[in-house]
Amino acid sequence: MTQNIYKLSILKLDHRPFRDKRITTHCALVTRSFGAKNFYFSGVDDNNLKNGVNDITNKWGGPFNIDYIEDPLNFVIKKKEEKYIIIHLTMYGINLFTEINNLKEKIINKNTLIIVGGPKVPKEYYQLADYNIAIGNQPHSEISAISLILYLLNPKFIENNEFKNKKIEIMPNNNYKNIKNI
Amino acid sequence: MTQNIYKLSILKLDHRPFRDKRITTHCALVTRSFGAKNFYFSGVDDNNLKNGVNDITNKWGGPFNIDYIEDPLNFVIKKKEEKYIIIHLTMYGINLFTEINNLKEKIINKNTLIIVGGPKVPKEYYQLADYNIAIGNQPHSEISAISLILYLLNPKFIENNEFKNKKIEIMPNNNYKNIKNI
Repeated sequence: MTQNIYKLSILKLDHRPFRDKRITTHCALVTRSFGAKNFYFSGVDDNNLKNGVNDITNKWGGPFNIDYIEDPLNFVIKKKEEKYIIIHLTMYGINLFTEINNLKEKIINKNTLIIVGGPKVPKEYYQLADYNIAIGNQPHSEISAISLILYLLNPKFIENNEFKNKKIEIMPNNNYKNIKNI
Repeated sequence: MTQNIYKLSILKLDHRPFRDKRITTHCALVTRSFGAKNFYFSGVDDNNLKNGVNDITNKWGGPFNIDYIEDPLNFVIKKKEEKYIIIHLTMYGINLFTEINNLKEKIINKNTLIIVGGPKVPKEYYQLADYNIAIGNQPHSEISAISLILYLLNPKFIENNEFKNKKIEIMPNNNYKNIKNI
């Protein structure tokens, strides 16, 4: 039996270093911890963001890649030409919880780009997306949206804690902090 | 058959309005959208935070309550005396994914307080907690931690979109924004 593989990347639109510093960092960290391998962001380039996330990957393991994208619309068009499945996360979309089994079947073994916007995403992204998906149709957070879709697509990733080249690892414990150096 | 009921509240420790503005707002919004009824925060009181979240509840539905807690340690001690189950979310804890069925059984029909900290949580919280739970043992985000534990404890809540007294509602759609006024 060949193994099913998820090849997931996240594109976060419109990063603004002052306003979004911690929000975009959290988006990148949940992307890594829930099993996507690439985090792309557009808006304003930000070395502090990239260095902070790369420091986490060096310490806690990878592989994981963070990159700035200057022209995100063109980036999505190119990925579509390369046969990526494009998913756009929006509170206005079809509900993930009704769509998850269908989605898993469609993206298995295919490159998949998941776009996360903000309040004002240009309509071109809605049109380019194969799926406009809501994680519930309530206002909450792009951080929880990324974590829920990645977890429900591939729950085994975080359950198995599959990170390579790590320097430290937590030994889960109900009573105290237990960190192992590797 | 009597219905199983989850009675969930979140306590977010150590809010700082300047640094955490959007992070704490996102914590409150995921708390509401994934089905907990109370969001408490300690640290610095913040009317902008409370008003912003109450505006969302007035528009999108409730019930949902946000409150500032001046002495959070005393608050947790009191809740424990009132027989609340205390769960502390920490990346050092036992992994949620191995513990979820046990946890669901333990908290059903009982008041449950879920504490979310930051990098430096005093050890008293670890000791007061019945469960120190990690959502994976990787650094990510308190926002994703809240959403994952609430979703896995009670997936039906967001799937059924059970909000009352709402003024607007989204009609899920793959192609365009469709908002219904109620």
